[in-house]
Amino acid sequence: MKEERSAPSGGVNSLNNLRQSIGRLDEELLKIFAERRKLSLAVAANKLTTNKKVRDQAQEKNLLTNLTAKGQHLGIDPSVTLSLFHNIIEDSVRSQYDYILENTSSDSLEPLTLAVLGEPDSYSHIAAQQHFATKKRRFESEYCPSFLSIFKAIESGRVDLGIVPIENTTAGNITEVYDLLLEYKLNIVGEEKLKVKHCLVATQGATIDDIKDVYSHPQAIAQCKSFFNEHPNINSHFRSSTSSALKLVAEYQNPSIAAIASEQAAENSGLEVLSYGINNYQENYTRFLLVAKKTIEVPSTIPAKTTLTLQTPQKPGALLDCLQVFKSHSINMTKLESRPIPTKPWQELFYIDFEGNASDLIIEKALVELKQIASEVTLLGSYPMHDILATKLDHHALSNQFNRL
Amino acid sequence: MKEERSAPSGGVNSLNNLRQSIGRLDEELLKIFAERRKLSLAVAANKLTTNKKVRDQAQEKNLLTNLTAKGQHLGIDPSVTLSLFHNIIEDSVRSQYDYILENTSSDSLEPLTLAVLGEPDSYSHIAAQQHFATKKRRFESEYCPSFLSIFKAIESGRVDLGIVPIENTTAGNITEVYDLLLEYKLNIVGEEKLKVKHCLVATQGATIDDIKDVYSHPQAIAQCKSFFNEHPNINSHFRSSTSSALKLVAEYQNPSIAAIASEQAAENSGLEVLSYGINNYQENYTRFLLVAKKTIEVPSTIPAKTTLTLQTPQKPGALLDCLQVFKSHSINMTKLESRPIPTKPWQELFYIDFEGNASDLIIEKALVELKQIASEVTLLGSYPMHDILATKLDHHALSNQFNRL
Repeated sequence: MKEERSAPSGGVNSLNNLRQSIGRLDEELLKIFAERRKLSLAVAANKLTTNKKVRDQAQEKNLLTNLTAKGQHLGIDPSVTLSLFHNIIEDSVRSQYDYILENTSSDSLEPLTLAVLGEPDSYSHIAAQQHFATKKRRFESEYCPSFLSIFKAIESGRVDLGIVPIENTTAGNITEVYDLLLEYKLNIVGEEKLKVKHCLVATQGATIDDIKDVYSHPQAIAQCKSFFNEHPNINSHFRSSTSSALKLVAEYQNPSIAAIASEQAAENSGLEVLSYGINNYQENYTRFLLVAKKTIEVPSTIPAKTTLTLQTPQKPGALLDCLQVFKSHSINMTKLESRPIPTKPWQELFYIDFEGNASDLIIEKALVELKQIASEVTLLGSYPMHDILATKLDHHALSNQFNRL
Repeated sequence: MKEERSAPSGGVNSLNNLRQSIGRLDEELLKIFAERRKLSLAVAANKLTTNKKVRDQAQEKNLLTNLTAKGQHLGIDPSVTLSLFHNIIEDSVRSQYDYILENTSSDSLEPLTLAVLGEPDSYSHIAAQQHFATKKRRFESEYCPSFLSIFKAIESGRVDLGIVPIENTTAGNITEVYDLLLEYKLNIVGEEKLKVKHCLVATQGATIDDIKDVYSHPQAIAQCKSFFNEHPNINSHFRSSTSSALKLVAEYQNPSIAAIASEQAAENSGLEVLSYGINNYQENYTRFLLVAKKTIEVPSTIPAKTTLTLQTPQKPGALLDCLQVFKSHSINMTKLESRPIPTKPWQELFYIDFEGNASDLIIEKALVELKQIASEVTLLGSYPMHDILATKLDHHALSNQFNRL
């Protein structure tokens, strides 16, 4: 069967012919994409020898300006071209980071043991899968019933590292994890961000009208608050993890009991998904930290983030003086959280995330200054930054493309 | 100059050669993508004649399963292939929706006049640009100083439609717009979702230490609450729009005054951006509504959303009875908001968003039932749904790809 690749646009083509043509184009796209990824790793290898930064914003800007212009000649709006190539560049940058991390660490490629909350397909497990998906190094999960047991497993050396949620865009900080970070003084060695979509799951054949009791982790329940507002006759109950809630529903086989859990867990449980995405906001993200006993070396070619805790002397303006240090060195703070210190009533501890590597000269200098002002500074680790920010084109340059009126 | 397309992966290639090869691949990608878009519009034309739904989840699932398998043979992780093609499919679906809307409405292709809050580059203006970017029909902005003046401009017929923010993932609902929707009884004809990144902007040469007063729209200030917590010596002041705040800074040329505004506005203002992304949460989205005097016809081939308001009789369980109607027809509610009725103290009005078109038979039936229970039901409009949900692959099907341990 011989077919033209560029099908005529008239109505003579059957839907199937069109779809076959699209399928062939998709395979071509995938092949070229695979080739591009190989070249991208060759670029990483080159940069590793020359110690150049992975990202070169000027170079990316050139590339994107060129492509949006070429796209317009092909009838593609600049915003569409940008969205496609931001996706491709993000993958390329992440692969280069992973390549460099793998080729600078002296670690073996033996699978890592990773302490994970709950059961297979818990949100922590999905975040771990996402984190390691593009990495050469694999992991084996050790499932733990609580955050505390994760920290204990890491401290005892029974596992190589652990993954714990630290904040959610809807429900805020997971204060228990903040407190454990303080107590166990382990090192943060990485971060991951997961888009979270909660599902309501019950036994086969149950309907939403049957449900009287819903079990889940307190965070999941908080993120689905509006669902409970809409169903005032449904009671919520806390469980230590979404996966243990799911297990409970599977065991009881009672149509009045439901759990809130991830899509992946729901679909793998053999239970029935009564409702998808019952979280208050569809844009619902959880940030996870990877925690280990030993620190990680982030090569200077890769952007890093650092977390520290800070205690200030009991005098007015002490925190401001500390923050001034970050400002004066132009260090970008990405998070500032205060937590009461359990052993020192009315005193606050500050958690600070900022961009930069504790081994950078400028950060080292800032930390020395900070230690002179603060009563205590504890480094919780420098680790590769998760977010790969899209290189922007100048709005001026784009404005004559966008504002066609 | 003759060059091999697939460059060897060794270290002999200079960075420039590698980049040139990548550039050529990118252009090829773009060309194939453009061809794919043409075929996709031919599919839309075909579906328009046969009245078939634009999305065919089974077909998309086949396509994605096939591509992730092919990708794995090329060394690409399924998550990477999915992410790439979700992006491509989303563009394709959106183009097909736009094609069908343009070819079923009897409207001319004259530019629309659109009432927009603030000045050029206000968030509303950026949302409007994003909304029309992929559409054939263009728009001309009429800038209005307040939400009220937007509603008045639409009601008077001076503009074809208006765009107004309705909710933000960090700061919640824009209650003023809810109240105006109620008062003016205009029609919702579309929605748009914008990722919002706030910047701190001051006169050239100012530093963050100089800043004493920051001006912006109350919503922007609410979304940057943690910034003000970190800088207790900086006072916040409300302005009617982020763009009017920017104008104030530009006029006063005082280094102690700053504004919070969009990146686009900041960069086009000639002022200095002191800090990018000062919002509490990086995942910060605002949903906008497009509002007009006349309703829009959403063809049945395209997924629609409907908004209505509801008043319930003053008796216990009245709201539950109403919500029961949605449940019993398996209609997916996406939002439920209550607002006090200004003219009737202690009575609540409910705003409900749900998936479906008011002209669908099942929705019509549900609305008839609803009107029997509620004391008042007002349709605010059916409009094309903004979110294009990614077709998921079965987790079972993927699990042996993902769980390599």
